[in-house]
Amino acid sequence: MNKWGIIATWKMAVDGVAIGADILKNKGKCQDAVEKAIMEVENDPLYTSVGYGGLPNENCEVELDAAFMDGKTLSMGAVAGIKDYKNPVSIARKLSEDRFNIFLVGDGAEAYAHKNGFIRQNMLTERAKKTWETRMDEITQKNLSPYDGHDTVCMISLDSEKDMAVATSTSGLFMKKRGRVGDSPIPGSGFYVDNEVGGAAATGLGEDIMKGCLSYETVQRMRNGVSPMKAAQSAVEDFSEQLRKRRGVAGAISIVAMNNKGEWGIGTNVEFSFVVSTDEKELKSYLATPIFNEDKTIKEIKIEEM
Amino acid sequence: MNKWGIIATWKMAVDGVAIGADILKNKGKCQDAVEKAIMEVENDPLYTSVGYGGLPNENCEVELDAAFMDGKTLSMGAVAGIKDYKNPVSIARKLSEDRFNIFLVGDGAEAYAHKNGFIRQNMLTERAKKTWETRMDEITQKNLSPYDGHDTVCMISLDSEKDMAVATSTSGLFMKKRGRVGDSPIPGSGFYVDNEVGGAAATGLGEDIMKGCLSYETVQRMRNGVSPMKAAQSAVEDFSEQLRKRRGVAGAISIVAMNNKGEWGIGTNVEFSFVVSTDEKELKSYLATPIFNEDKTIKEIKIEEM
Repeated sequence: MNKWGIIATWKMAVDGVAIGADILKNKGKCQDAVEKAIMEVENDPLYTSVGYGGLPNENCEVELDAAFMDGKTLSMGAVAGIKDYKNPVSIARKLSEDRFNIFLVGDGAEAYAHKNGFIRQNMLTERAKKTWETRMDEITQKNLSPYDGHDTVCMISLDSEKDMAVATSTSGLFMKKRGRVGDSPIPGSGFYVDNEVGGAAATGLGEDIMKGCLSYETVQRMRNGVSPMKAAQSAVEDFSEQLRKRRGVAGAISIVAMNNKGEWGIGTNVEFSFVVSTDEKELKSYLATPIFNEDKTIKEIKIEEM
Repeated sequence: MNKWGIIATWKMAVDGVAIGADILKNKGKCQDAVEKAIMEVENDPLYTSVGYGGLPNENCEVELDAAFMDGKTLSMGAVAGIKDYKNPVSIARKLSEDRFNIFLVGDGAEAYAHKNGFIRQNMLTERAKKTWETRMDEITQKNLSPYDGHDTVCMISLDSEKDMAVATSTSGLFMKKRGRVGDSPIPGSGFYVDNEVGGAAATGLGEDIMKGCLSYETVQRMRNGVSPMKAAQSAVEDFSEQLRKRRGVAGAISIVAMNNKGEWGIGTNVEFSFVVSTDEKELKSYLATPIFNEDKTIKEIKIEEM
């Protein structure tokens, strides 16, 4: 039997991963698996950090980022700061077919989506608007930091043809400044995949993740023969330490990784849920909890089924 | 005497590098050196790929990308697809002071620049408009590919305090789609610097450069003890080969690199000019010419003073 597998960030990905796993089980393509899996998450209004229902920027506009990468050709596509389109991940995948103009932002991304027939939708839900209003009140009354919540959905998959793909989608930092781009659409930071090795993708404080190119770094560690688990954990730990040393503080960082044998791993410096399904083991959600040493380094990461 | 140095892509950088070298010689900061050096290039209307006078997108709008990174703190800032501001590199540097919202695109970047008092300027010159009109005629009449020209100015500098910084600025691909982002504002692809090692920055076809995270890759090779020359050349050669193998074709890629001892190097798969000034050797422009083997791999790179 041929190997296949899919791993995703956050428990919210569970219904999407089920769809992706079904595609892979039936000898479908990894590219379709990650796209369809992420569309499912984008379409669910209950998830407040991705697609429809995602929390808005400081102006109460939902601005979305997404990316897609193919591990065979290294083709990639990305959009950032796009408004009013239903499935940013599909726009990113479409862009990856081109040689030029593969990363589009703002109204340019919208013009491209419009000309290519993608579905328009106001992505702001009543619920997200209400959360924004409440937060605005809190910020004003309690002098809180506006920034909170940054749960990107990332999917990596391996199909029975031994091809790999990765995709990401997010509404970014809640209350972000208009036009803010995090790591999710940034190649090497938010995602990377190479059929010859494997793939990795990140979620957390994008501004910190991109300072360390952490998805590319994780893939390079796997290239040097390190297991996905050790690659992701050491990449997160080493860079969190650099951030504390250089900047006094490290933001939340979590990474999922899978190699071209279907072995998977995660690294995180916060409590982090993720979802995996492979030919060997049915779909499961897991919770990863880092146990810290006194000096804030990570002693171990406890991983339990949820 | 303390070491200092500055290296830049393309001969157009020569007046900028002179300004940067002067700052470094007088014990100024690397951050000021790269910013002022790039501002000089941005302000010159004769350079058709950077700042004022840069060639426009398909809609005859000049959209600019720029980035700034500090090697001590790993702080970075970037703008992409910004219109009508005189010095994108300065906006990128200002953004690098923040912890959140450090990469802004499109009208969000413009709103930030406006609120922070940056100088407005219509960046389209008569000359650039004329070039656009001519090109539009050529594309229509001769069925040419619209895409041409992608000469980002990149600067890396080391100061007498052993700090390092890197910055980039470009108008991107001539005739690009509205909102297109290349490698220049992308951390790890267009630029990267770490005081503990050195810095690297890239110019060429951004869509291909970002598939290999080539600036980060070059810095990691230096981290493993490889000289800047060998790191940049091997990164370009290895990845050009991957692009040919995976995609049939490799776009133009050139990289400049400098380590924290002031040693420098370049890698390129096309004819490429660059400028260097250090405490050891006065300002010089150089031309690098790759000599190819029959299988399109690079036999050697000839570097001559211009």
